[in-house]
Amino acid sequence: MTEFELIAHLTRDLPPHPAVVVGPGDDCAVLEAGHADRWLLLKTDAVVEGVHFTTETEPERIGHKALARGLSDIAAMGGLPEAALVTLALPAVHDPMRAEGIYRGLRALADRHHVAVVGGETTTLPSGLLLSIAVTGWVRKDRCVLRSGAKPGDAIFVTGELGGSLAGKHLDFEPRLAEARWLAENFALHAMIDLSDGLAGDLRHLLHQSRVGAELHANTIPISRAARVRAQAGSHAKPPLAAALTDGEDFELLFTLPSAQAVPLLDGFRAAFPSVKLTCIGRISAEPGLRLRDRQGIREIATHGYVHFAKS
Amino acid sequence: MTEFELIAHLTRDLPPHPAVVVGPGDDCAVLEAGHADRWLLLKTDAVVEGVHFTTETEPERIGHKALARGLSDIAAMGGLPEAALVTLALPAVHDPMRAEGIYRGLRALADRHHVAVVGGETTTLPSGLLLSIAVTGWVRKDRCVLRSGAKPGDAIFVTGELGGSLAGKHLDFEPRLAEARWLAENFALHAMIDLSDGLAGDLRHLLHQSRVGAELHANTIPISRAARVRAQAGSHAKPPLAAALTDGEDFELLFTLPSAQAVPLLDGFRAAFPSVKLTCIGRISAEPGLRLRDRQGIREIATHGYVHFAKS
Repeated sequence: MTEFELIAHLTRDLPPHPAVVVGPGDDCAVLEAGHADRWLLLKTDAVVEGVHFTTETEPERIGHKALARGLSDIAAMGGLPEAALVTLALPAVHDPMRAEGIYRGLRALADRHHVAVVGGETTTLPSGLLLSIAVTGWVRKDRCVLRSGAKPGDAIFVTGELGGSLAGKHLDFEPRLAEARWLAENFALHAMIDLSDGLAGDLRHLLHQSRVGAELHANTIPISRAARVRAQAGSHAKPPLAAALTDGEDFELLFTLPSAQAVPLLDGFRAAFPSVKLTCIGRISAEPGLRLRDRQGIREIATHGYVHFAKS
Repeated sequence: MTEFELIAHLTRDLPPHPAVVVGPGDDCAVLEAGHADRWLLLKTDAVVEGVHFTTETEPERIGHKALARGLSDIAAMGGLPEAALVTLALPAVHDPMRAEGIYRGLRALADRHHVAVVGGETTTLPSGLLLSIAVTGWVRKDRCVLRSGAKPGDAIFVTGELGGSLAGKHLDFEPRLAEARWLAENFALHAMIDLSDGLAGDLRHLLHQSRVGAELHANTIPISRAARVRAQAGSHAKPPLAAALTDGEDFELLFTLPSAQAVPLLDGFRAAFPSVKLTCIGRISAEPGLRLRDRQGIREIATHGYVHFAKS
C-alpha cells in the first residue's frame, strides 16, 4: 500500500461535518468559519531527520524547510497564511543551539510572510529530530483553488524549474505565496497543486481528483540546472527529463486554466514576476491517463512516474 | 534547561501580530478570526512511542490518547473543538492494521465530540511511531479562560482524582470538554489549565502566569485509587499524596474562581455531573510560591513538585 492509498484508506467514510468544505485529499483542509467571503485553511506537515534532512543539515535550513512546506500548501489553495504552531520532537539529551537555530530559520520565514508563530511545543523522541508544523490561513471563497477543478482543454502551467531539488532547493525554496495569490486574484484557475512528490506524481493526483487526463510536451518541461548537472554524474544518473518528472520537493506550483487565457497569463505573470519562470507544459484531456509527447510520439507515463527514455 | 525553559526561550520576543490574542504559553493559542463574539483556538500535540505509549499499547488507545490530549487543551480554555488534522509518522515497513487501529481510536473520540477529521498526512520515521495532531476550536470571547487570571483569595478546584495515571487513565481518559464548558458558561472562572505535567507542576505554571502564589490543603487533594495501589508496591513506591502532586497525565481540569462562588459551584456541578468529583484543594495567595498545609504545618513545595513527606 502506498502512502496515498494508506491515507485514503484511513480517512475513508468520514462522517459529514457542517464546518468541512474540503476534507482530506487536497493541499489544505478548507473550513467554514462563519464568514460570507472567506474560508479557513488548515494544514500540518512534518519533517524528519534522515528523511527530509540529515544530521549535518544546518538547523536554520531545517526550520525554514519545515515551515515553507506548509506555506507552499497554503499557496496552492490561493490562500494567505496567518499562524503557525510548532511541535519539535528531539532526544532528551540535545544541543539547545540546534533547537534555537531551527527556530531562527522558521521565524525568519514566518516574519517575511507575516505569519504569527503562536506556539512551540517540545516533546521527547528516542532518536533523531522531528518538526511538525500546523499552519492556518484564509482564502477568498471565490478564489479558492482545489485540485479537483481541471477541465478538458485546460492548459497546464508550472512555475520555476523542476528536478534536482536535493542539491539544495529542497531546503531553501521560498514558498510561492505571492505568485499563487496573484494567479488566483487575476485568473480563474481551474485547479492547482504544489509539487512535493514530483511533477508526474502530483499531476496524477490532480488528474485523479479532476477525473481527467493530460498530455505533456517533453520539450517544454522546464528542467533545472541542478537536474542537468546531476545527470552528468555517471551512467546510472537520472536523465534530466526523468528528474524533472519524478524528483520530489520542487515546491513549485502546478495549475490549469482555460487555454484561451494562456497568453494574457504569460504576459501578466512576466510583468508581475520577471524573475520567475512560468511555462505551459501541456494540456488536460478528457481521456484518462498521463501521456508524454516527444519527437518519437506519445507514450504513457507509468504510475510511479517512470518513462522509458530512449538513449539519445 | 527544562522543556518549559526551552520553549520560553525559543518563542521569546515574537513580533506582535494583529491576529494573535494569546500566543505561546497557554493551553491553546487564541486567534482573532473576525467575529464579534468568538475566537479561534489552535493547538498541536504529539505522542511518541517509548515516551507516551509502548510498542505493546493497543493502537486504538494510542489514537484515542493522541486526540484526547489536544481536546483536553481546548477544554481548558472553555472552548468547543471543531476539527483535527493528523500527522502519522511511522517506519517505511509497518503493519497497516496498526495505523488503521490508531485511526479507529481517534475517529471514535472525534465522532463522540463532533470533531471533524480533516486531514491525515503520513510521513516516514526511521524507527518507532509518532502521532502529531492539530486541533482547532472556538471559544466565546466572554468565556475564554486563560492561565493568567487567578486572583488572591480565589478558591482552587480540581476535577476527578489525581495520580497513578500510568495504570491506564493516561491512555483512556475522556477529555473534560462538557465539564469545562459547563463551568465556563455558568461561572466566572478566573484561570484554568489541564493537568498534563502533574498538579504541582501545572499549578505552578498557572501561578507564574497569574503572578500569584497558592496554598494547598494536603488532606483535601483527591487521590486516585491507582495512586494508592501503586504506593503499596514497595518501599520505593511514591506515597499517594506525592503521586497526586507530581504524577503527570491526569488530564483533569484545575481552575480558580472567587471563593464566594465555591458553594454554588459545588452544588451546581454535582447536579450537572453527578459522577465526576469536584474538589476545592486550596486557595490563591498574593504571596508567591506554592505551599502545602497539613497536620504538621505549612511547607514549600519545591520547584519540581518534590515535597519532603514525613513517614507516617
